[in-house]
Amino acid sequence: MADPLPGWRDGKAKAAIVDFVSRVTGSGADHVPASERIATFDNDGTLWCEQPMQVQVFFLIDRVRELAAAGPALAERDPFNALFEGDRPRLRALGKRGLMELFFATHAGLTLREFAAIAQAWQASARHPRLEKRFVDLVYQPQLELLEYLRANAFRCFILTSGGMDFVRACSEPRYGIPPDQVIGSSARLRVDISARGLTLFTLPELVNFNDREAKVENIGLHIGRRPILAFGNSDGDLAMLRFVAAGAGPRLALLVHHDDAEREFDYDRGYALSPLAEALDRAADYGICMVSMKNDWATVFGPGA
Amino acid sequence: MADPLPGWRDGKAKAAIVDFVSRVTGSGADHVPASERIATFDNDGTLWCEQPMQVQVFFLIDRVRELAAAGPALAERDPFNALFEGDRPRLRALGKRGLMELFFATHAGLTLREFAAIAQAWQASARHPRLEKRFVDLVYQPQLELLEYLRANAFRCFILTSGGMDFVRACSEPRYGIPPDQVIGSSARLRVDISARGLTLFTLPELVNFNDREAKVENIGLHIGRRPILAFGNSDGDLAMLRFVAAGAGPRLALLVHHDDAEREFDYDRGYALSPLAEALDRAADYGICMVSMKNDWATVFGPGA
Repeated sequence: MADPLPGWRDGKAKAAIVDFVSRVTGSGADHVPASERIATFDNDGTLWCEQPMQVQVFFLIDRVRELAAAGPALAERDPFNALFEGDRPRLRALGKRGLMELFFATHAGLTLREFAAIAQAWQASARHPRLEKRFVDLVYQPQLELLEYLRANAFRCFILTSGGMDFVRACSEPRYGIPPDQVIGSSARLRVDISARGLTLFTLPELVNFNDREAKVENIGLHIGRRPILAFGNSDGDLAMLRFVAAGAGPRLALLVHHDDAEREFDYDRGYALSPLAEALDRAADYGICMVSMKNDWATVFGPGA
Repeated sequence: MADPLPGWRDGKAKAAIVDFVSRVTGSGADHVPASERIATFDNDGTLWCEQPMQVQVFFLIDRVRELAAAGPALAERDPFNALFEGDRPRLRALGKRGLMELFFATHAGLTLREFAAIAQAWQASARHPRLEKRFVDLVYQPQLELLEYLRANAFRCFILTSGGMDFVRACSEPRYGIPPDQVIGSSARLRVDISARGLTLFTLPELVNFNDREAKVENIGLHIGRRPILAFGNSDGDLAMLRFVAAGAGPRLALLVHHDDAEREFDYDRGYALSPLAEALDRAADYGICMVSMKNDWATVFGPGA
């Protein structure tokens, strides 16, 4: 049989994945019915590149420049001026949550459809400043193979992202084969507008759900209603989700990718202020988490399709 | 080819359904890609019987009696005494939202898994007071056929219920073939508990999402992220969802079942205080909604399996 995971080098991580899938799909004591085969993945840094800043921050910068062209006052207001100037240290200082608040502030009043069209147009052309590819092509080939391998074994895969839900939904189906309803992320309050021509649904400038850390677990409860049996993350923001998955009864697999590959991608962990990997690095063994080294465990990082 | 909808009598409603499905799956101008074929169904009164009161109110009554046996003080407190006594007029006067608040008040502190076990044990035996069947067997056979027919045509079907999300999730897969993550309902705040043995997720006694009327549309945005192309309801509580679906571009089908069958089920509409059908009855034509008469359009109501 052809190797379903050619982008993964032989080693502990790949062996753990293949062993886990074969146990839960087999007829032994560890069998898990197909309906319970739920896997959850973080997005930024787990499925696609998040350096030097999350993809949506680049989107946000371009969006603010576009809005500023229409009404220049915005570009002078703090903290929008940091976006306008692409001032990365100041943007990082706002933190992930602060950036999400700006994100929704600049998209208020759009319907879901209008926002999706804007995000898709941007995603179709915007390029990474260093890696010379479109952002949306900087997805990790080994992870695409893993998603496909899991689906071939009757898993259903969800994304749990602290990023803007609708931004990720705008590309999740073509990128990952994951439909919008299986993408759970940070979101703004939605409001219905009833007019003569019917109903529309649009967003208000109010972050109501910042999907990070413990909130990822609460949103698994709200959106999925079952404890997943596999979870994959890359930072402390994913730790609650990984521990929740690892603590369930029966076979479980929790994985963390460690970005230790300066040559092919980036090398970072504790020092990345927006989304550090620190507690997870220190406690992975205690928490039953399998570490994945980008440098050693991945034969390729970005696919040939990119 | 065998009729996929034998529980539906020939008539306008059945013709509208078959015509719609054949247009969206065909290669003509009305073709809709499989990923956009989303259908949303109300539950109480649309997929299963909701008379003389919603199934979960009977569950709630039994649950309060059980809790009262452990600590009698509860049975004396207002409004729990109305539940304890099964006082239907007083319970109806609380309204759907008030009942949901009681629902979550009596289930606080349970993990998702613990609640599911309690709900499933009750669902396995509790019987309707008049129809001499288990509540969970009082699902409408024509609707089961419709769900199956839609799935066979690559639709994905979701439930949008004002009922307790976890109560419906506890039986949605065996009853309807709809997995828990495709059930969107009223819900309480969830909280993560981290202890030495890992993480658990449990509910707080606080209704944070009453999934009725406009909220159904907002929750379509939150949970699905796409405008459905087919929706089916049975009361004014579904009207926003039906209008939202009908107002989208391209082929759309919005349906309302009218309970006009005192012989085989119940005959009610405007007078049912918990969930009236009034505005929808008066304005269906204006809103582009197709009415379904239980008496005339359904050849069977409850399946032989019940």
